[in-house]
Amino acid sequence: MKIAVYRKEHFNAAHRLNNPNWTDQKNDEVFGKCNNPNWHGHNYELIVKLIGQPDPDTGYVYDMKELSDLIKKEVLVKFDHKNLNLDTEEFKQLNPTAENIAVVIYNILRPKIDSSLDMKVTLYETERNYVEYPA
Amino acid sequence: MKIAVYRKEHFNAAHRLNNPNWTDQKNDEVFGKCNNPNWHGHNYELIVKLIGQPDPDTGYVYDMKELSDLIKKEVLVKFDHKNLNLDTEEFKQLNPTAENIAVVIYNILRPKIDSSLDMKVTLYETERNYVEYPA
Amino acid sequence: MKIAVYRKEHFNAAHRLNNPNWTDQKNDEVFGKCNNPNWHGHNYELIVKLIGQPDPDTGYVYDMKELSDLIKKEVLVKFDHKNLNLDTEEFKQLNPTAENIAVVIYNILRPKIDSSLDMKVTLYETERNYVEYPA
Amino acid sequence: MKIAVYRKEHFNAAHRLNNPNWTDQKNDEVFGKCNNPNWHGHNYELIVKLIGQPDPDTGYVYDMKELSDLIKKEVLVKFDHKNLNLDTEEFKQLNPTAENIAVVIYNILRPKIDSSLDMKVTLYETERNYVEYPA
Amino acid sequence: MKIAVYRKEHFNAAHRLNNPNWTDQKNDEVFGKCNNPNWHGHNYELIVKLIGQPDPDTGYVYDMKELSDLIKKEVLVKFDHKNLNLDTEEFKQLNPTAENIAVVIYNILRPKIDSSLDMKVTLYETERNYVEYPA
Amino acid sequence: MKIAVYRKEHFNAAHRLNNPNWTDQKNDEVFGKCNNPNWHGHNYELIVKLIGQPDPDTGYVYDMKELSDLIKKEVLVKFDHKNLNLDTEEFKQLNPTAENIAVVIYNILRPKIDSSLDMKVTLYETERNYVEYPA
Repeated sequence: MKIAVYRKEHFNAAHRLNNPNWTDQKNDEVFGKCNNPNWHGHNYELIVKLIGQPDPDTGYVYDMKELSDLIKKEVLVKFDHKNLNLDTEEFKQLNPTAENIAVVIYNILRPKIDSSLDMKVTLYETERNYVEYPA
Repeated sequence: MKIAVYRKEHFNAAHRLNNPNWTDQKNDEVFGKCNNPNWHGHNYELIVKLIGQPDPDTGYVYDMKELSDLIKKEVLVKFDHKNLNLDTEEFKQLNPTAENIAVVIYNILRPKIDSSLDMKVTLYETERNYVEYPA
Repeated sequence: MKIAVYRKEHFNAAHRLNNPNWTDQKNDEVFGKCNNPNWHGHNYELIVKLIGQPDPDTGYVYDMKELSDLIKKEVLVKFDHKNLNLDTEEFKQLNPTAENIAVVIYNILRPKIDSSLDMKVTLYETERNYVEYPA
Repeated sequence: MKIAVYRKEHFNAAHRLNNPNWTDQKNDEVFGKCNNPNWHGHNYELIVKLIGQPDPDTGYVYDMKELSDLIKKEVLVKFDHKNLNLDTEEFKQLNPTAENIAVVIYNILRPKIDSSLDMKVTLYETERNYVEYPA
Repeated sequence: MKIAVYRKEHFNAAHRLNNPNWTDQKNDEVFGKCNNPNWHGHNYELIVKLIGQPDPDTGYVYDMKELSDLIKKEVLVKFDHKNLNLDTEEFKQLNPTAENIAVVIYNILRPKIDSSLDMKVTLYETERNYVEYPA
Repeated sequence: MKIAVYRKEHFNAAHRLNNPNWTDQKNDEVFGKCNNPNWHGHNYELIVKLIGQPDPDTGYVYDMKELSDLIKKEVLVKFDHKNLNLDTEEFKQLNPTAENIAVVIYNILRPKIDSSLDMKVTLYETERNYVEYPA
């Protein structure tokens, strides 16, 4: 039977929810306070889950120190203390909802992890709102 | 691939665990302190999980503000600051265990959410005891 | 210089906030949902803080195992899984607000702890509402 | 003896740390990533502490529902989902460090609370960095 | 539909990660600080999840008091306040990674729980590193 | 008025509570499971609090990045992933109770911080047992 391992990291970022194809009024109706043109921000908690067989020599499914370093190098350097809409290529054309941020982080990390391991990404936007991809 | 979104809410309620078909002695043996005839209570933490495709226009699987409002209107108004055994129709005949409360909440919310979205309910009775439905 | 030690315990109880000298209408205006005549309840988190000099032989200000046992014996046996208004002598005539519960617990424990040690009681009624006595 | 009561609220905001009297290089050296000209953001947790005597009729030092409503009306409406530097009068000329935000919130709330009650404000910028005013 | 119930317990233990078939240098390269020959330690948080149908007489999938007692008797007595490498039979020949500890705990508890119930074990080694078995 | 700033860090260590001037029986009676001769361990959470005036140029009482780096360099390098009794000079002759660990950490950090700032150290041994020095 397989084992899942989880590593939790965090980053702080500003963002704005907006659909450029809509009027300001429509954006306000749909996104409310999250549409503030001057942005707002969050402490994002990011959990990366990998599923696989433990290596018989180490007892590890994946070295958590290496996973932490990988997340820092590939994700946190891009997003931590950034404005997701202005400072990142990924969200120049993509609305930075928690759903979309989780998919973007998954797509960044997936090619860096051996394909024999399943992966999931959980992203907390606040303590009360969070998402998981893939479900 | 689908995405899961989660919204956490809370309510405070009194309850008593009891099977009216059993003797007092049997109820005491099975339910212990939870059978106190004068009730006791909990801070319940409720998490509603929805699974689906994000809307391409919003980037949302479901608007978390709308989900929060729905939980407040359909669940919290009924159960918050209530005695589950005395004040609610749902638990007049049903033992208000965490398992049964989670199923009742699921059955209240399920018809209010589009059937294309999968739903799960997690309910924390205490930090150390919690349930999820459906498993 | 002195050191503070803290021990955290918890209990679950039902209660109702009510002033018997007031009309039902006045009680509703002041206490709102907390005035529900059928009670509601909470998971109370209780923190007892003692301040003193560490014993040179043990390095302890107070043995946390003994403090835990004392709180269980003197406080939790009385209040855990109880209706504070109906099941306890302390709140038969006293409104069980978080403030009053903290003072009652302090007054129960204070004579059981050597007077050379200062004591404070912190009581969480919910994660967002809590009290400390003495301030 | 007096009792302290605490109410916890939260808000999400964007900010940038910057001293306009300094060169860009100096600002980078001192504020590092927090000086990002496009802002970043946080989930701020705000705790307001009041110290006083409980009212003998209610058993309350302060009605927590009223304190919550006051914080929402006076603080959260101003700061939640805002860019502190751009959207608020308070931080147009004042660097929005956690220290300064806590002082500003204290100064907003202090005149709204009876002067017989002592007040403190605790502000969590992240789970690992927080401040308290007055100390 | 089935329901999952969860019970959380904790234990404190010392351990060392080491592969006796490797050189000291190889062990240092792979396990880093976790290879300290004098051990280090953790507060482990253990969550046992059971999935099944609620008993119609009790409304319980499993009595949480009985599950807590079972975990204490079968797991905590063995591992709490112990050196996993020196004090336990299970880890004399097995590297006590979080993955292996979770599998060992699963294998201890699985035969004690009716086979009609599915079981999973989640083990937090730190707040940021945790594992789940089976995945 | 002064402001307090807090920085939270963590480390994992093994320890044993023991008084070498006592018999084994006396040590067992007083320290119980914590006297295990093969050690056990904890995830320690360390909070350093500094009290002072914010610098008018930065708005900082103390740069939290610098405080974090200082704690890592002076405290975590010594204690993280170590056996406190065997690997550290500080606890070769001193019983590593939470009280004594907090005092040792205070004495390490106090000379490194400007004396115009007051300092306190809070140390969590478990979520339920913690200490503060000076009180």
